[in-house]
Amino acid sequence: MSELDPPIAIVRDVVARALAEDLGTLGDLTSLAVVPAGARGRGALVARSPGVLAGSSAAREVFRQVDPTIEVRWGAVDGAAVAAADRLAHLEGPARSLLVAERTALNLLCHCSGVATLTRAFVDAVAGTATRIRDTRKTLPGLRALEKAAVRAGGGANHRESLSDAVLIKDNHLVHLTVRDAIERAREQWPGRVVEVECDSLEQVAEAKAAGPDLVLVDNMSPREVAEAVAVLSGVAPVEVSGRVTLETARSYAEAGADYLAVGAITHSAPALDIGLDFDHRTGD
Amino acid sequence: MSELDPPIAIVRDVVARALAEDLGTLGDLTSLAVVPAGARGRGALVARSPGVLAGSSAAREVFRQVDPTIEVRWGAVDGAAVAAADRLAHLEGPARSLLVAERTALNLLCHCSGVATLTRAFVDAVAGTATRIRDTRKTLPGLRALEKAAVRAGGGANHRESLSDAVLIKDNHLVHLTVRDAIERAREQWPGRVVEVECDSLEQVAEAKAAGPDLVLVDNMSPREVAEAVAVLSGVAPVEVSGRVTLETARSYAEAGADYLAVGAITHSAPALDIGLDFDHRTGD
Amino acid sequence: MSELDPPIAIVRDVVARALAEDLGTLGDLTSLAVVPAGARGRGALVARSPGVLAGSSAAREVFRQVDPTIEVRWGAVDGAAVAAADRLAHLEGPARSLLVAERTALNLLCHCSGVATLTRAFVDAVAGTATRIRDTRKTLPGLRALEKAAVRAGGGANHRESLSDAVLIKDNHLVHLTVRDAIERAREQWPGRVVEVECDSLEQVAEAKAAGPDLVLVDNMSPREVAEAVAVLSGVAPVEVSGRVTLETARSYAEAGADYLAVGAITHSAPALDIGLDFDHRTGD
Amino acid sequence: MSELDPPIAIVRDVVARALAEDLGTLGDLTSLAVVPAGARGRGALVARSPGVLAGSSAAREVFRQVDPTIEVRWGAVDGAAVAAADRLAHLEGPARSLLVAERTALNLLCHCSGVATLTRAFVDAVAGTATRIRDTRKTLPGLRALEKAAVRAGGGANHRESLSDAVLIKDNHLVHLTVRDAIERAREQWPGRVVEVECDSLEQVAEAKAAGPDLVLVDNMSPREVAEAVAVLSGVAPVEVSGRVTLETARSYAEAGADYLAVGAITHSAPALDIGLDFDHRTGD
Amino acid sequence: MSELDPPIAIVRDVVARALAEDLGTLGDLTSLAVVPAGARGRGALVARSPGVLAGSSAAREVFRQVDPTIEVRWGAVDGAAVAAADRLAHLEGPARSLLVAERTALNLLCHCSGVATLTRAFVDAVAGTATRIRDTRKTLPGLRALEKAAVRAGGGANHRESLSDAVLIKDNHLVHLTVRDAIERAREQWPGRVVEVECDSLEQVAEAKAAGPDLVLVDNMSPREVAEAVAVLSGVAPVEVSGRVTLETARSYAEAGADYLAVGAITHSAPALDIGLDFDHRTGD
Amino acid sequence: MSELDPPIAIVRDVVARALAEDLGTLGDLTSLAVVPAGARGRGALVARSPGVLAGSSAAREVFRQVDPTIEVRWGAVDGAAVAAADRLAHLEGPARSLLVAERTALNLLCHCSGVATLTRAFVDAVAGTATRIRDTRKTLPGLRALEKAAVRAGGGANHRESLSDAVLIKDNHLVHLTVRDAIERAREQWPGRVVEVECDSLEQVAEAKAAGPDLVLVDNMSPREVAEAVAVLSGVAPVEVSGRVTLETARSYAEAGADYLAVGAITHSAPALDIGLDFDHRTGD
Repeated sequence: MSELDPPIAIVRDVVARALAEDLGTLGDLTSLAVVPAGARGRGALVARSPGVLAGSSAAREVFRQVDPTIEVRWGAVDGAAVAAADRLAHLEGPARSLLVAERTALNLLCHCSGVATLTRAFVDAVAGTATRIRDTRKTLPGLRALEKAAVRAGGGANHRESLSDAVLIKDNHLVHLTVRDAIERAREQWPGRVVEVECDSLEQVAEAKAAGPDLVLVDNMSPREVAEAVAVLSGVAPVEVSGRVTLETARSYAEAGADYLAVGAITHSAPALDIGLDFDHRTGD
Repeated sequence: MSELDPPIAIVRDVVARALAEDLGTLGDLTSLAVVPAGARGRGALVARSPGVLAGSSAAREVFRQVDPTIEVRWGAVDGAAVAAADRLAHLEGPARSLLVAERTALNLLCHCSGVATLTRAFVDAVAGTATRIRDTRKTLPGLRALEKAAVRAGGGANHRESLSDAVLIKDNHLVHLTVRDAIERAREQWPGRVVEVECDSLEQVAEAKAAGPDLVLVDNMSPREVAEAVAVLSGVAPVEVSGRVTLETARSYAEAGADYLAVGAITHSAPALDIGLDFDHRTGD
Repeated sequence: MSELDPPIAIVRDVVARALAEDLGTLGDLTSLAVVPAGARGRGALVARSPGVLAGSSAAREVFRQVDPTIEVRWGAVDGAAVAAADRLAHLEGPARSLLVAERTALNLLCHCSGVATLTRAFVDAVAGTATRIRDTRKTLPGLRALEKAAVRAGGGANHRESLSDAVLIKDNHLVHLTVRDAIERAREQWPGRVVEVECDSLEQVAEAKAAGPDLVLVDNMSPREVAEAVAVLSGVAPVEVSGRVTLETARSYAEAGADYLAVGAITHSAPALDIGLDFDHRTGD
Repeated sequence: MSELDPPIAIVRDVVARALAEDLGTLGDLTSLAVVPAGARGRGALVARSPGVLAGSSAAREVFRQVDPTIEVRWGAVDGAAVAAADRLAHLEGPARSLLVAERTALNLLCHCSGVATLTRAFVDAVAGTATRIRDTRKTLPGLRALEKAAVRAGGGANHRESLSDAVLIKDNHLVHLTVRDAIERAREQWPGRVVEVECDSLEQVAEAKAAGPDLVLVDNMSPREVAEAVAVLSGVAPVEVSGRVTLETARSYAEAGADYLAVGAITHSAPALDIGLDFDHRTGD
Repeated sequence: MSELDPPIAIVRDVVARALAEDLGTLGDLTSLAVVPAGARGRGALVARSPGVLAGSSAAREVFRQVDPTIEVRWGAVDGAAVAAADRLAHLEGPARSLLVAERTALNLLCHCSGVATLTRAFVDAVAGTATRIRDTRKTLPGLRALEKAAVRAGGGANHRESLSDAVLIKDNHLVHLTVRDAIERAREQWPGRVVEVECDSLEQVAEAKAAGPDLVLVDNMSPREVAEAVAVLSGVAPVEVSGRVTLETARSYAEAGADYLAVGAITHSAPALDIGLDFDHRTGD
Repeated sequence: MSELDPPIAIVRDVVARALAEDLGTLGDLTSLAVVPAGARGRGALVARSPGVLAGSSAAREVFRQVDPTIEVRWGAVDGAAVAAADRLAHLEGPARSLLVAERTALNLLCHCSGVATLTRAFVDAVAGTATRIRDTRKTLPGLRALEKAAVRAGGGANHRESLSDAVLIKDNHLVHLTVRDAIERAREQWPGRVVEVECDSLEQVAEAKAAGPDLVLVDNMSPREVAEAVAVLSGVAPVEVSGRVTLETARSYAEAGADYLAVGAITHSAPALDIGLDFDHRTGD
């Protein structure tokens, strides 16, 4: 059990659904027709571009659910930087089983590694500062646990797992209350939980400061505004920046003193890392 | 029931899981603490960048499952091109319910619309040719039906839904058989189904031609090679191109005469379309 | 809620799975391509052979899950004898929805009605006697509740619903104990539950009698032997006959005085009743 | 993984549900009361009538889920013709576990083998012709994958797995379009997929021919009409016959030149094959 | 498989849900951060108060699902009386895995053992009489199978498992029928099943007696009234007492001659038995 | 949507499972046999002892799933103190539906109200102090969300929802690290989350203080020790007390200055609140 793995119960469930989705009602027509039942296969999961590996526990579970006799020997661990042509895992087992598992394992591995790779790019962009890259709740439905684990593999940190683990007060919540009253009610209702407040302007930051939040999320501000917010909130609450953070701007926000950069793109817009399964074709029956 | 919708049974299931994932064990701490139980809200789903809408049936189902009294009036339909600032839907209902549904609805809508938008870009790139853009099985686990519907909304077509609806013979299947024997066995085992063959070289194309497949998938060829393959296979089988198809190269492959371009990126690497929920803050209790 | 309906929670679940199975990942390709989105349809569920109706609550649930705007007006109720060409239900709604629901509704209706029809044949075969036809646990996996309801619709009665609602001691349980000891242990362990004993011979019947079971199941006996068993057990326990009961033999077993005839065939080997959906083709948009 | 097996993910799920259905809330009252916890049992799955075996992977999964220490040694494989009294499998393990698994394993095995047996009868009826027997979507809800595998075990072939893997245009779809327009729209909407057309008359066959379908399904025609349809469609599309195909008529349809006979009865009306579990009663503790 | 275990299929499902509930989306934050991945742990499940053990098969399944390499050696079996400080099981395995499994295993074990302990107290209260303690359908939703097994572990017996395994006619059912008619209809509709009747007064008992039920449930009577009811029903039907049965009153009801005491409190109000997991802290890596 | 309700998605799922569990395969034998199909019923949910209401959204969902035509008019809301004989809700609908829903609705309502009632007793015991009563992860598997909502209805507050929403470092985590190092690693790994530390002695409290936790959980200390811990940690971290908190001791811990009392008993050992469904027997058809 690694700190970079999603909970095993979720992995089992995601993989079972993914296999059902890809196998359909009849199974793998092609392998069943064309590959002899007794044939064995050997191959490797190979990176085709450089990136950061993630999702290996999900891929492992795919092979296990398809056929527990498939042997998988990993040559890399989640979080490792991989280069194009790196062999990530060696596979050996019944050829039909390997072919049936191939696409589902790769779909999971390529997506998770894509998330880890983009996360790492943001982490590298702020290297040398104390700023941490964090994810958001902007995840793909059904895949949040895997994506949040992949963010950790990329060196990022996890923000809220759901609506139910911290209070985050935004504009849209403040139609009927001041920030101060809102924080007070949140602390009363959910004592002992983190209360964050989103601010869109330095005026709101000042107002929030007075109300004593645990964290201030500044949205859509320039690095210069962020620096001011950080100064205002110094010693009061850490500052998280959201809204305009790209690979180009991340460093300037970090240098403005932000504690966290919240980046939705690392989960909702990460391109897949290109990984393939290369079969060793000399394998006989 | 639109031809751009995924099957409703799948939508119900995906949405139920997505809500469970986002609500956690306690629910939306913030709204429950800060927004009065009786408050009503009004707002709109608004595009923040241009693109193609998809996923509206999933978003509609989110609102329905959270609170059937939420009214949703769509101002755009799946497949429509939307501009930044376009109001896609008007929402009205209990404020807590709208806030609880917001993120899950947006996660589905932004992802599906992202898939549709990237698909449309490929479709536009080959506009004026007879070439169709098709998806692949490189989809995100659990979301295949929604992504394939989004591909249709973008103007693309769907390739296999699973391993079980057509035969696709690749290199990795041909360790023990010639192409001709493989096709024969596939037709024997699964009569009446489409049999496709993947070819990596013009030699393989010639060999495949002789074996009479229903479709030839040429992988990793240049547009010039594709043109040759198309010529060879003219009148025998349509030609699908995979492997190097990007927005830059798509047109040259189309002009080479390919019937289909198979593009994994439209499902596995589509960035989310930026859509938000803007609340109308003058709404009272 | 009729005594001929299966529990609604089971019906909902069976129907949701059946629809997912039949709709696949893309949906009904044909209707989506060929039938206009706004077209409406009208039609009827029509019996094509005579039989007994069952499964209407499952069919109704199919239409409801596919599209709650479909109107279904039943012209017959479960348990009713229907003649060829009888209109069982009138349907009206969006044409695509009717076509999507058609096969799943019919698969459920035809199977349940097949079970009811075969059950009724057995019931009719023993008409005028006090003998009741009962089902067994030989049901199709996942469909037990629907089949047992269909047995009731046919006029039969339900035997055990599962291994957990009554004790039924067979030969295979008696390797280590006498019948008497077995019954005693069953009464000790599960007080207040029905304890049945299976007997393959008149000697066993005598032995069972002494042990005081609640019911004796005589297996593979001739009607003459059954008559003897009934005489022996008179005033002690009712007698259920299993093992050679066919439509031809049922009456002679009934006339031998059996209280129940247990017939596995009514659930595991009932041919579907032929029911179809006839569309009224003059329906316009 | 055999080409005669259903996908393992589906088998796992069907078996888990079947066991939950048969075990109820308390478990097997009888074995728990009457059979000592430590007792071991030995026995065999034995055919009681001749037929074709199918469903062995499902039966194997039942034993595995009930108790992985049960040893099962198969003496026959799916697709094998078995004679009455043939021992299909040898079983050994804890006696309670064998008794708990017995009925669920048999229910699956008897139904699947029944489907395979009836399929084989149709296959034998057309032996020596080039005609293939095919199944339909008239399957028992929840059991489609197992039934379609059993059809293959019987020597039949699988038609559509769901509404989503091929287009099949019937009368009911043609209220608003000509056949030609319908086929065109289907090819436009779902390019690369098989498009079939159902015809009820030779006039429709002629009309369909002109429209270029991939397969023509002729419904409710006499063998003589089928022969005409085959002649008309020669070189254009294979012909599938549905609607009046029985064991008696199958050969005449085959001799009329039909490529496929579509037989709903092999899945919806196949009587169970009689298979039992015989315990070896000399087994001690 | 012990007669004190719930069905394994239910245990697997309850445990999988319980783990998903306790692990959340990220997993055990604490262990993953603080305990080295390779660290091993050793410990024991230890009773902190005296009681009766139950739920061990559920606890075992928790450890298995979290990590099959965890070794569990039980020192006590379900149904055993345990003293404070008794070591119930020895555990050894990866430290993170033990910590992740700890709370879910204990929640199941403490609740089931609490049910068994309270059941045993009632059983002890009637010791020496022929009266049996029985449970009711007043169980905690989702946990009925586990609670009913725990009742057996405590020496109690199980009453109905669900609404579907016996008829129990109460006041509320008798708005439209006399008791006699109700019993007759129940026997007609559900032949061969146990028919119980609830009586609130001795008049009703007399009326019920005449109708010939299989069991009479007397509700809210004093021990003296119960003794009268027992006398009236002697030789006709056993008597079950419900409604005022407490640890204080149980014996007087037993001495009044009741066959069964139905006690809802043993499932709906049993306090957890205090059991903890003591780690052996000298364990190194 | 009330802050005292559990998330609706969880309620739907818990209720669906509870109904499946209670209805079995055949349904409510008694009502189906004895109550006429068309009969209507009227009644009330009535408290039989004083307490605090909780679980009404679950009970409402039971009636809705059984039969959406049942009308439920609540006379009390979750969190309200109710007296014996108070009518909590008025019910009207088909008599069979009411009888089918009765037990499942009551099982949920009585358990949740039991939790709320015991919580309120603890809350009342510390009335006038600033101390809050909090729950723990010692909940009944599958019912956590409902129990935590019931705790809120009783006036308590929720501690962790799962292992994944806050760090809580206990003895068992500190085999390999000092408290200071453990906190540091937790903050590094899960930045922005609450980090709590459990202390068993005042020495540990001093050590923890130096490490700067967000909350200190003091376990198994006397009120006097707690007062010292509170003094030591004043201005550093709030103090939560666990381990010896009973209704008798709660006030002395509160007066010692504890911020929170963590009480496992309110979820794992709360006796059900006695609530019944009284039918109005004059109701006709």
